[in-house]
Amino acid sequence: MANSPTGDSVLDRVLRILEAFDASTPTLTVGALARRADLPQATAYRIVDDMTRRGFLDRQPTGEVRPGLRLWELVTRCYPARDLRDAALPFIQDVQSVVHQHTQLAVLQDDEVLVLERLSSPASVINQASVANRLPVHDTSLGMSMLAFSPSHSQARYSREHPDIDDRFDGGLRGALAEIRTRGYAFLDGALDEGTTGIAVPVLDRSKQAVASIGVVVPTGTRRHTIVAVLSAAARGIARATGNGP
Amino acid sequence: MANSPTGDSVLDRVLRILEAFDASTPTLTVGALARRADLPQATAYRIVDDMTRRGFLDRQPTGEVRPGLRLWELVTRCYPARDLRDAALPFIQDVQSVVHQHTQLAVLQDDEVLVLERLSSPASVINQASVANRLPVHDTSLGMSMLAFSPSHSQARYSREHPDIDDRFDGGLRGALAEIRTRGYAFLDGALDEGTTGIAVPVLDRSKQAVASIGVVVPTGTRRHTIVAVLSAAARGIARATGNGP
Repeated sequence: MANSPTGDSVLDRVLRILEAFDASTPTLTVGALARRADLPQATAYRIVDDMTRRGFLDRQPTGEVRPGLRLWELVTRCYPARDLRDAALPFIQDVQSVVHQHTQLAVLQDDEVLVLERLSSPASVINQASVANRLPVHDTSLGMSMLAFSPSHSQARYSREHPDIDDRFDGGLRGALAEIRTRGYAFLDGALDEGTTGIAVPVLDRSKQAVASIGVVVPTGTRRHTIVAVLSAAARGIARATGNGP
Repeated sequence: MANSPTGDSVLDRVLRILEAFDASTPTLTVGALARRADLPQATAYRIVDDMTRRGFLDRQPTGEVRPGLRLWELVTRCYPARDLRDAALPFIQDVQSVVHQHTQLAVLQDDEVLVLERLSSPASVINQASVANRLPVHDTSLGMSMLAFSPSHSQARYSREHPDIDDRFDGGLRGALAEIRTRGYAFLDGALDEGTTGIAVPVLDRSKQAVASIGVVVPTGTRRHTIVAVLSAAARGIARATGNGP
């Protein structure tokens, strides 16, 4: 891999450029991009040009750039979670059509919740989950439902890396996870948005480890019994459809 | 941009590697990848290693690689059609829940149909559209509905590049497009799969040019009147939600 005078490779620079964009700044001027990606302006202009010519970036009519539709297409047709997402989609639709609230599918990635898919309806409550966004594990029912069904060394690592986490739950993180394992679902009031409650059920493999989670966000106070039943059926369906079923 | 002895840049090689995967071969051994991307084995091993370390590729337990979940995440949170897809999703859900058949949203890209989103139901008929896949314009109602509402120079270019296209339609391509413009929707029997019919309505901007299309695939013989009405309402809704409305 060819290196620049400062020692970072072309791929490092491409990665830093792609990481500079996010949902709140989906387009950037090349100048802003250079600052965010910590690249000299001249380097940024050259590499943005190269990336744009190949569809890694798209140039907007304003002159700003953003990740390219061609790159989206290449990655989306075969990214690793594509099979899971495709298999889960009908079940997400079923849940959404019964519960009429945000319904989402997520996986754990680097000890964070990565949202793979999300269906909403106009009447749904506020919710910070959006496709390809990350959320903290301990602030979401999606994350807690997966952490509860993760190997104990993963739980211990999460505890170690979040030293104040025990104060967040009566009975500490360990107690909260034990309760989720007993119940089979996670339930979290207003952790991200006041007045909303997250309910999530893990999708389990044959060894009862979470491979994903399906959850909804509902107004706080909503009776959970029916919702948990619908989510549990969907989680089993997704497990079966992905070859993890009984 | 640093060049290899054969003169292609790192970005060229990265692009060829990503292009080597598709829906039918979502994972590849490095050897197969080298052949498909036309790279020397040693080069392929080195670049795959570099790409895997940075999340551009993910290595499977089998040793095969595929496009990376990290790359998917970076691109998906802000690719160019994200706003359109997010705005359109509730309308796609509405159509799907009324028609109970595959419902999809597409744009024109390089004179092909690029599928941005798709909702199905288990009972739906066969359909070749899948998210991030491309389909030929003249074989799909999605494509024809957009070409009919494209500038005349785009239509002329499409005709030029597909010399036999006139034989496909009574009255030639020009006649078919004129009919679609008059009707406001495209209707195509069994072009991709026998026994299925595509119906699609373009999403128009203020100057009556297509920016996208929403369509369904139904069993041939399905009465189209209600479906066209539902699709037309959805297309207007999407136009309004993306700032193209009246």
